[in-house]
Amino acid sequence: MHVAKGETHWVIPDGYIPEKSSGELTSHESICVLNTSSGEARLSLHIFFEDREPMENIAYTVPARRTIHIRTATLRKDGMPIPVGVPYAIELESSIPVIVQYSRLDATQAANALMSVMAYPIK
Amino acid sequence: MHVAKGETHWVIPDGYIPEKSSGELTSHESICVLNTSSGEARLSLHIFFEDREPMENIAYTVPARRTIHIRTATLRKDGMPIPVGVPYAIELESSIPVIVQYSRLDATQAANALMSVMAYPIK
Amino acid sequence: MHVAKGETHWVIPDGYIPEKSSGELTSHESICVLNTSSGEARLSLHIFFEDREPMENIAYTVPARRTIHIRTATLRKDGMPIPVGVPYAIELESSIPVIVQYSRLDATQAANALMSVMAYPIK
Amino acid sequence: MHVAKGETHWVIPDGYIPEKSSGELTSHESICVLNTSSGEARLSLHIFFEDREPMENIAYTVPARRTIHIRTATLRKDGMPIPVGVPYAIELESSIPVIVQYSRLDATQAANALMSVMAYPIK
Repeated sequence: MHVAKGETHWVIPDGYIPEKSSGELTSHESICVLNTSSGEARLSLHIFFEDREPMENIAYTVPARRTIHIRTATLRKDGMPIPVGVPYAIELESSIPVIVQYSRLDATQAANALMSVMAYPIK
Repeated sequence: MHVAKGETHWVIPDGYIPEKSSGELTSHESICVLNTSSGEARLSLHIFFEDREPMENIAYTVPARRTIHIRTATLRKDGMPIPVGVPYAIELESSIPVIVQYSRLDATQAANALMSVMAYPIK
Repeated sequence: MHVAKGETHWVIPDGYIPEKSSGELTSHESICVLNTSSGEARLSLHIFFEDREPMENIAYTVPARRTIHIRTATLRKDGMPIPVGVPYAIELESSIPVIVQYSRLDATQAANALMSVMAYPIK
Repeated sequence: MHVAKGETHWVIPDGYIPEKSSGELTSHESICVLNTSSGEARLSLHIFFEDREPMENIAYTVPARRTIHIRTATLRKDGMPIPVGVPYAIELESSIPVIVQYSRLDATQAANALMSVMAYPIK
């Protein structure tokens, strides 16, 4: 049996899906989650905005002993995606401890730009 | 009632507003704050420099259950902005716990560059 | 005698070896480890994927009072490298406390992009 | 009287001074330190390498209520700078608590690339 490692609650204040792409790669964000345990992790994501109510309880599952790299553009709440070109923030809760990192590739220009942070753990 | 999460005191040592922009995007920095609680967060920002006195107590409010992405170029103390092209540091105090991330887009060149860090929590 | 500093267990959820390079530099990732102590640190790396079993127990040594910057493309498990163009995650265990940072240079475009995070310490 | 905030001991495992620059900006690294206190902070930096002895006890001072952004290329030990194009790691000790961030601008290509991390605090 492998144990769960990390924390059950994480926050990423700077979310942003670029509106456009050019060049070879596509602009995107990834929420990267590692589940080291022998059981699956059930995630619940909450999306906060500057000027409207949050989108709450978007569900996701990470299988045992796997990582998932979630493209934020694929997330849906009642069929609606996160709007592009709008600043937002991400809160992630997990049924068991996991580790979470956030990365963004901005390909607005043909020359791409990258950023990455470890999410902030709420203990 | 939603509770406040995070910390009330954060620091970002590497602040810098690029002097110029070219290409499609504009150089800028964002201080991204998430307030998960049902009450508003009252922020106080202090700006430190290499060679002059700090600009202290710049006020900002984050509404309940909202994120704000503050452009540093919009901050004012007695009507004065943070000077461009000068290294500085940011201290942020909040009336309730929040989570803070800092990101910079440098568009000095047409091909933009991105960096991001979680602010450092003072506990 | 210099003491060991840091932690013995670290995680990097966002690993990715870009498939191609162009321009002057080569796309690569580095796992940067500092061993401040007077004794050597014996590392064991585990690589997790989205859709297959982990590659476990890849061994590495950091000499006393040295840093190493490990190119992930050089890691081998039973002679097999980490596949390129595939999202993965890294878990690192050390016999003594060390400090770990992860950086990626993406040179898919002639204009390169950089990202870096401190690995997440499991305490 | 303003109190000192942060930690007295920080580590940055991924140091690297790019060998060349092109375009408008110059490749460089900055060690950004904030001293929030009413007294000065006396820093001692140690530089570690992959294949040679460390450069120890490089001194630096941060005045009261100031930030400094140290260009690593300006550091000297017995008149010798940190070699360019060589992976290294940084350990920083301070006489009083400070907060430390590390950023790198790589201008090897005309299109620059940026990365930044908060240094890792040893507690």
